[in-house]
Amino acid sequence: MNVLSPDRAILAALTEKIDNLSKPRGALGRLEDIARQIGWIQQSLSPTLRKPTNIIFAADHGILAEGVSPTPREVTRQQTVNFCRGTSGINFLCRQHGFRLRVVDAGVDADLPTDIGLIDLKVRRGTDNFAHGPAMSADEFMLCLDRGASVIDACHAEGSNIVSIGEMGAGNTSPSSLWMHILTGIPLSQCVGAGSGLDGEGIRHKVSILQRSLDAYRGDGSTLDRLRWYGGFEMAMAVGAMLRAAELSFVVLIDGFIMTACLAAARALQPAVMDYAIFGHCGDEAGHRLLLDYLCAKPLLSLGLRLGEGSGAVCAYPIVESAVRMINEMDSFSHAAITKYF
Amino acid sequence: MNVLSPDRAILAALTEKIDNLSKPRGALGRLEDIARQIGWIQQSLSPTLRKPTNIIFAADHGILAEGVSPTPREVTRQQTVNFCRGTSGINFLCRQHGFRLRVVDAGVDADLPTDIGLIDLKVRRGTDNFAHGPAMSADEFMLCLDRGASVIDACHAEGSNIVSIGEMGAGNTSPSSLWMHILTGIPLSQCVGAGSGLDGEGIRHKVSILQRSLDAYRGDGSTLDRLRWYGGFEMAMAVGAMLRAAELSFVVLIDGFIMTACLAAARALQPAVMDYAIFGHCGDEAGHRLLLDYLCAKPLLSLGLRLGEGSGAVCAYPIVESAVRMINEMDSFSHAAITKYF
Repeated sequence: MNVLSPDRAILAALTEKIDNLSKPRGALGRLEDIARQIGWIQQSLSPTLRKPTNIIFAADHGILAEGVSPTPREVTRQQTVNFCRGTSGINFLCRQHGFRLRVVDAGVDADLPTDIGLIDLKVRRGTDNFAHGPAMSADEFMLCLDRGASVIDACHAEGSNIVSIGEMGAGNTSPSSLWMHILTGIPLSQCVGAGSGLDGEGIRHKVSILQRSLDAYRGDGSTLDRLRWYGGFEMAMAVGAMLRAAELSFVVLIDGFIMTACLAAARALQPAVMDYAIFGHCGDEAGHRLLLDYLCAKPLLSLGLRLGEGSGAVCAYPIVESAVRMINEMDSFSHAAITKYF
Repeated sequence: MNVLSPDRAILAALTEKIDNLSKPRGALGRLEDIARQIGWIQQSLSPTLRKPTNIIFAADHGILAEGVSPTPREVTRQQTVNFCRGTSGINFLCRQHGFRLRVVDAGVDADLPTDIGLIDLKVRRGTDNFAHGPAMSADEFMLCLDRGASVIDACHAEGSNIVSIGEMGAGNTSPSSLWMHILTGIPLSQCVGAGSGLDGEGIRHKVSILQRSLDAYRGDGSTLDRLRWYGGFEMAMAVGAMLRAAELSFVVLIDGFIMTACLAAARALQPAVMDYAIFGHCGDEAGHRLLLDYLCAKPLLSLGLRLGEGSGAVCAYPIVESAVRMINEMDSFSHAAITKYF
């Protein structure tokens, strides 16, 4: 995959159009930034949003055996099925905002029903425990990138041009914290948080397990090797999806801590992926704000969500839509009956 | 008007219902708080939102003659007409979120067209200049409260149960800053900001004009008297609308700095009005964050909007709708196929 920045030549015309809408300059704040970014991505002064899609990649994690999360392993399977049945948190948000939902089995530790619309891209039934060796092989990591990309290809074929990407995977804040540490150099303890509900003692245990996992690393030292060593199947597929989405000029809505860690990984492989990202939500997970700051990212919402599943990204969608409506529907000073004083 | 707090007896059942939705406790953050508040306001475990309406009160201000704003007086008239024509910033937001828009002439300094759907509640063509005496009489202030309430009565008759309230009035951050100072005791200089675009020198001039206006006060010293002395017709009508909306158990979406100052005034008259308020947006106007903190208010959005017109409140509506969908559409643990581990 080869992600290029959009051509910057259009930015001046976008800024001029936005500044001439019938409002004080800058009065629509972040809506103006988002409209400019989407016009830039789409190389259009009249950008559009088509068939928004939320993709959930689901997989299990070997590291869960070390007691790094209160979430039982079976919850990954249960929630993956619930997403398909339409009864989970993400489902009402998708209905509200007109999102299609694609649920992908990237590596859930169960034989899942075949008649519920689930997309079967399972690598195998969960990663290995990286406290004792690599979570997955280098070949598996590359396979995940390809499979994640293939989900975007299907969205593209349907005419979608905006995706949000979410995940389900009991224990997956642990690999996310390690990815954050590896990619940013921020001390491990600042990258680790409560996840789905650890107490202080639980967090200390999690940090010590993750530190031991770092110490046990025996790979070649490259970023790619360390990502696969500590990765998750759903996370690697999300990276592949983000990269292909950027390659195809999608707007990519970024959800919470785990997806932000995946974007940081995508950025390490193809820096221009950042140009296509809009950050939906800053949650309470320790490390998320730090990671956003590291990426110079300004999320649209801060509502204390910690559900995953793409919920923070989908919640932010109406603001993105407002931005696109602004640039297309607002009158300009040349048409409006209003004195320009700003 | 007599605003009572909703009966708190239902809160335990609301909390229980929300805690038993199929998600980790608290995982939907602010959505859970909003769902609880609306269920409380409506005294229902299955609250609904019906016919959301955005009301814009428009009026002119005598204080504008003192050079406290870069906005020309004619912009109040122009924008009031543009709202009715559907070409302004608030219009695309209302279309996006299914809001009805009611535009009220509370005291615009112009003869406005009678065939554009404008609601004519004009007191007179703008307030007097409070640098030299009261902006309006006590009778006019009470008239505004009644007229603002009547707009809510009309919404209620149509079956609406949620309103956002916005304003248009060149120069109206000046009376808002004075109301904030009077109602909170926060030093005047911290209540005054750039408004629609003053520079540092302009702000210093604005502060000195407002301080002189405070020094020139010759009323009876009561809160009500000071509110009418420094008020605006659109602001006093907004106060009346907020009070009646609370009395009729509406959800009241609060917009930016000016509407937050109006809510503070409504609170001084009827403290329980606060129970019905949801804060949409914190803007960049100096004083807004201070005022929100004073009111212990946590706005849903912070997008740098400074358009007024109700734009910040209407932008926040989908989050309010998400909260209501959550409590009505999410499965409970007793129904969902999921292990409760939290």
